[in-house]
Amino acid sequence: MEVLQVLHMNNGEGETSYAKNSNIQRKIISETNSRLKESILNIMCNNKMMPESIGVADLGCSSGPNALMVVTEMIDIIDATCRKSGSSFPELRISLNDLPGNDFNEIFRSLPAFFQKIKEEKGSESCYVAGVPGSFYGRLFPLKSLHFVHSSSSLHWLSRVPLGLGINARTALNKGKLYISKTSPSDVINAYVSQFQNDFSLFLRSRSPEIVPGGRMLLSLMGRSSIDPTIEDGCYYQWELLAHALSTLVSKGLVDEEKIDSFNAPYYAPCPEELKITVEKEGSFRINRIDAFEIEWDANISSNSPAQCEDKKILLSRGQQVAKTIRAVVESMVESHFGSEIMDDLFSVYSDLVDVYMYKKRAIYVNLVVSLTRKD
Amino acid sequence: MEVLQVLHMNNGEGETSYAKNSNIQRKIISETNSRLKESILNIMCNNKMMPESIGVADLGCSSGPNALMVVTEMIDIIDATCRKSGSSFPELRISLNDLPGNDFNEIFRSLPAFFQKIKEEKGSESCYVAGVPGSFYGRLFPLKSLHFVHSSSSLHWLSRVPLGLGINARTALNKGKLYISKTSPSDVINAYVSQFQNDFSLFLRSRSPEIVPGGRMLLSLMGRSSIDPTIEDGCYYQWELLAHALSTLVSKGLVDEEKIDSFNAPYYAPCPEELKITVEKEGSFRINRIDAFEIEWDANISSNSPAQCEDKKILLSRGQQVAKTIRAVVESMVESHFGSEIMDDLFSVYSDLVDVYMYKKRAIYVNLVVSLTRKD
Repeated sequence: MEVLQVLHMNNGEGETSYAKNSNIQRKIISETNSRLKESILNIMCNNKMMPESIGVADLGCSSGPNALMVVTEMIDIIDATCRKSGSSFPELRISLNDLPGNDFNEIFRSLPAFFQKIKEEKGSESCYVAGVPGSFYGRLFPLKSLHFVHSSSSLHWLSRVPLGLGINARTALNKGKLYISKTSPSDVINAYVSQFQNDFSLFLRSRSPEIVPGGRMLLSLMGRSSIDPTIEDGCYYQWELLAHALSTLVSKGLVDEEKIDSFNAPYYAPCPEELKITVEKEGSFRINRIDAFEIEWDANISSNSPAQCEDKKILLSRGQQVAKTIRAVVESMVESHFGSEIMDDLFSVYSDLVDVYMYKKRAIYVNLVVSLTRKD
Repeated sequence: MEVLQVLHMNNGEGETSYAKNSNIQRKIISETNSRLKESILNIMCNNKMMPESIGVADLGCSSGPNALMVVTEMIDIIDATCRKSGSSFPELRISLNDLPGNDFNEIFRSLPAFFQKIKEEKGSESCYVAGVPGSFYGRLFPLKSLHFVHSSSSLHWLSRVPLGLGINARTALNKGKLYISKTSPSDVINAYVSQFQNDFSLFLRSRSPEIVPGGRMLLSLMGRSSIDPTIEDGCYYQWELLAHALSTLVSKGLVDEEKIDSFNAPYYAPCPEELKITVEKEGSFRINRIDAFEIEWDANISSNSPAQCEDKKILLSRGQQVAKTIRAVVESMVESHFGSEIMDDLFSVYSDLVDVYMYKKRAIYVNLVVSLTRKD
């Protein structure tokens, strides 16, 4: 499986689309707003002169209602700062990045209204938006062209399935599982740990020449609270439940058991220490701070207004709603391995498992937020 | 009709798609290759030092096989020049622009293979490609960020239907016609002439701050050979035949006559003198040269291998083939006014008219190519 070719959030605006099921990612962006403000203010005010032209990039912007959210918040912060200091709105060069399978058309078609709004509300006509498709595990931008790089809910995706765990591996090391599990042998855990270190280091090395000295990065990604990679909050339980759902389909004769054995997710939820070590080893960036916050699996679901399935007008359980959030994110990848025909069955079984799990446990994601400065 | 929202080449890869019917535009790009080479060499060699980073933009890049054609030729020219002079390949910042309705997803999905090819053939990893959606009748790029701007087969599209000729005009000035015609009153001709002058001037004014002093533009667009705007080679005969085809549908009860009266194409084919006057009046650019060349309507059709209709395995007449080329370009606009249900009928009648016309006359487009330098 080529992650570059396969991974994208569910396109379109249908019931299983990311556009309709991305409230949790929206909530995560909101939670990091104070850090965003800190970073932007630092760029604008820590120089003797405010830069006349500011280059910013949002990596893994996806499509749907979140795609322009960070950019819009950034513009609000810049505008408020300019008004306070009596300076004029700088030239703002905005790059929106995601993998080539992302629905950039959808974002681009929303830009005329976006520009109109900025012009009316901020009086600015000097915002330039470009779409930059490609993997952030490699160079994306010209030399020293960026003052600020943002990425939310993206860096937990690896560049590839860890070595030895791919579809062509001679022996299935992680039988019956899709990600690190309590029963995974140490070879599996080590393969994941080292793939993350390599990828995150490559990410830093790729951004290093692109960011001006003193420029900032704000990265938020799924993580875990303990150095133990098998801890439940490492979001791993979601993969555990998905593996469980697939096993159920095996027992119904809908999925071959070997199919599960040969799939491992190109995903890793690191702990803060791993981020710290990799940043220090790579050497181009200084860590300002690392925060971790918890967010409940159903944090996007208002308790007063139970969601309805659009077409069928039936109330959805919390498990069903959480499952829709996960489906919008992982389906492109799971589908390419297991086939599209089982997707509805799979996520139906999965919903039930999520319901049971959430009834028994406090189901949370841990989100890590790291703020970095490019060294001089 | 909002041109920004409506105009795009036919998307997808079907039989009426632009991707499958854009050979004539490809031929036009090939014809201007020597001018492209001249422009790029000038940028690279006319400075004391070759720029370390070169910004280029292709405006109206569209999608399909032509979208990366100019960029690929540019890279070949830069690579050959570097090899000759023993210098290393510069950082190349490539912007692909078209209206927001363009199929950027299709271009973006072809980029990984494109980058791979450049890496293998040129050994270069410092090409950065961004998609920039928006109208070129307005600012698109940051201050002084470009060394070279290219545009082919795009600038004959106006930013809007000329004043007084739109769908809401109180009186239909151009009855039964879709564009300037021998019978058009002078008000119609004047409205077109002045819309083109305003638009082309706005285009130049928008590019002026974006291009470095000494930077170049190479613009090729449909035009005409004489200052008389009603001359047949001004591509106007294609609109004349389309109006004729629509009248045929009126007589069959498929189209309301008023619908034709209220549609005028946001299109203008200027003569070289008009380009010259507008460039000189705007003042930011120096004209290096203006060329005009003729290209036959069926120049894209090989005489030895008559094309077949994909699905039906029937031989297509030359008129049918030319009609497909036109349909791929104008359908989005014509459809938004006349409705999608008559498109097949319309272009079937149109094909017959084109066949007859080409039998009687030498059917040619005139293409103008203007090379400009940004004044210091």
